[in-house]
Amino acid sequence: MSLIIIGSVAFDAIETPFGKTDKIVGGAATYASLAASYFYNKVKIVGVVGDDFHQEDIDTFTKHGIDTEGLQIKAGEKSFFWSGKYHNDMNSRDTLITELNVLADFDPIIPESYQDCEYLMLGNLSPQVQQTIIKRLKNKPKLIVLDTMNFWMDVAMEDLLETIKLVDVLTINDEEARQLSGEYSLVKASKKILAMGPKYLIIKKGEHGALLFHEDKIFSTPALPLAEVFDPTGAGDTFAGGFIGYLAKTDTVNFETMKNAIIYGSALASFCVEKFGTEKIINLTQQDITSRIKEFIALSAHTIEA
Amino acid sequence: MSLIIIGSVAFDAIETPFGKTDKIVGGAATYASLAASYFYNKVKIVGVVGDDFHQEDIDTFTKHGIDTEGLQIKAGEKSFFWSGKYHNDMNSRDTLITELNVLADFDPIIPESYQDCEYLMLGNLSPQVQQTIIKRLKNKPKLIVLDTMNFWMDVAMEDLLETIKLVDVLTINDEEARQLSGEYSLVKASKKILAMGPKYLIIKKGEHGALLFHEDKIFSTPALPLAEVFDPTGAGDTFAGGFIGYLAKTDTVNFETMKNAIIYGSALASFCVEKFGTEKIINLTQQDITSRIKEFIALSAHTIEA
Repeated sequence: MSLIIIGSVAFDAIETPFGKTDKIVGGAATYASLAASYFYNKVKIVGVVGDDFHQEDIDTFTKHGIDTEGLQIKAGEKSFFWSGKYHNDMNSRDTLITELNVLADFDPIIPESYQDCEYLMLGNLSPQVQQTIIKRLKNKPKLIVLDTMNFWMDVAMEDLLETIKLVDVLTINDEEARQLSGEYSLVKASKKILAMGPKYLIIKKGEHGALLFHEDKIFSTPALPLAEVFDPTGAGDTFAGGFIGYLAKTDTVNFETMKNAIIYGSALASFCVEKFGTEKIINLTQQDITSRIKEFIALSAHTIEA
Repeated sequence: MSLIIIGSVAFDAIETPFGKTDKIVGGAATYASLAASYFYNKVKIVGVVGDDFHQEDIDTFTKHGIDTEGLQIKAGEKSFFWSGKYHNDMNSRDTLITELNVLADFDPIIPESYQDCEYLMLGNLSPQVQQTIIKRLKNKPKLIVLDTMNFWMDVAMEDLLETIKLVDVLTINDEEARQLSGEYSLVKASKKILAMGPKYLIIKKGEHGALLFHEDKIFSTPALPLAEVFDPTGAGDTFAGGFIGYLAKTDTVNFETMKNAIIYGSALASFCVEKFGTEKIINLTQQDITSRIKEFIALSAHTIEA
């Protein structure tokens, strides 16, 4: 049994009110696989990079026990590159540069050794590529989680709806939930989206936490209030990676375990934003995570009897 | 011992995407005292109305056990009137009409029978009037809660800062916390605001819940996700009234009881927005409240060990 994480593996150049970076390693699959690796030791990555991607970057995955057999390295080509600048509120950003490079014609390869996949995280990519992965797995995974964004709703809504039908959990932010459903109320939005196929919907609300919807049940968790949000890049992917990593570890999929998984995912995301890029999440200890989880529990603990 | 609630008692005309009302009874003290009355039976109101205020409106208070001796009725004058229109997102609104009327030169009277006050809720009013009340009480209450809004930060910041020094709990929304402190991060904002005098700060975030800050501790509670927010008018006042009413009932003031009080306040506020004006909160049963509290508890319940 293993957990496959697919998504971009990329270079980012990030500017925030706190500073700016050169090209640093980023991408949905990078953040998600690093986060998942703290909970589960059979994380396998699927992605594509150019030969500008360094061996030491690949070593970072290996050190975290992440299998990179499914990470294609295209000779003579360049990795996906994104550059963005965050506004003062850190909630909005402008994309300055997007160079698809190797991602433009990404044809994902699933190595034979990955066919034991029981947990599948489809990080943000074109819905067609996400769907291809599902089709190339010989056995249906126990759980498929799909992350996407408004961009695909704008340019590939039909493909996206086809792909959403095939997954168990959809993770999007509040604005994307409104766009996908045409409903302003998140409760109404969730009903429409759950009718599209997924059994679970997670709505990520950034500094306001996250909501989990399943049948008629709702779970709400806060984000940890932070004095400084240094760089929000990758927080959603880190959340998703922590979420599915925790579920793979417990190997139990139901509303109750998903609640806990959301708290673990939120804890990992709260680390991610404290430094630029992956800097913080490549060096966590289990003690760091345990302490942060305790902070989360304390944050909403009360003594009213149920 | 009693709980005094001071604030506007008014007429509102409200327009939302769901409909519009004629002049209906509103005002901060109205919402807060009705909410508090579900927890505590010695609620006493201080306010002023014109003779356009009907006996049946006063009867509504009396039926809820609210003492109206401190509610002045000015013959030949008109009650405060506010008219507003909510936008489609229900989070923003335009004020269409504000007629101060009797509120323009409101000189609050504290009846002798109110001098047993141990809990004081200063609903949104000019900081000078709020301060006058504190000075006219012969004994310092056990707990003073102050609610205010951006308007007073714009036109009377010095008075507001003087008044804030005198209170135990300040309740404002997130944008107001940012304006008052000059800090975007709510954690940083809370540190600056707690240094201004209050021992507790509550930041109301509407559909995203509320945060309580005290010393270095933080408590976060979600709002109940609702399919329809019919009319947000008075939700903040209802929250504050439920909050202080619960504290007066338990007669214990510390971080732990305040957490619970915030959940009770949030539950009352979640009823408030379900109908126009006070329509929903004048007819609650204890059973309604108990059920709603259970929904709140379930909303963030999980099984991670602390």
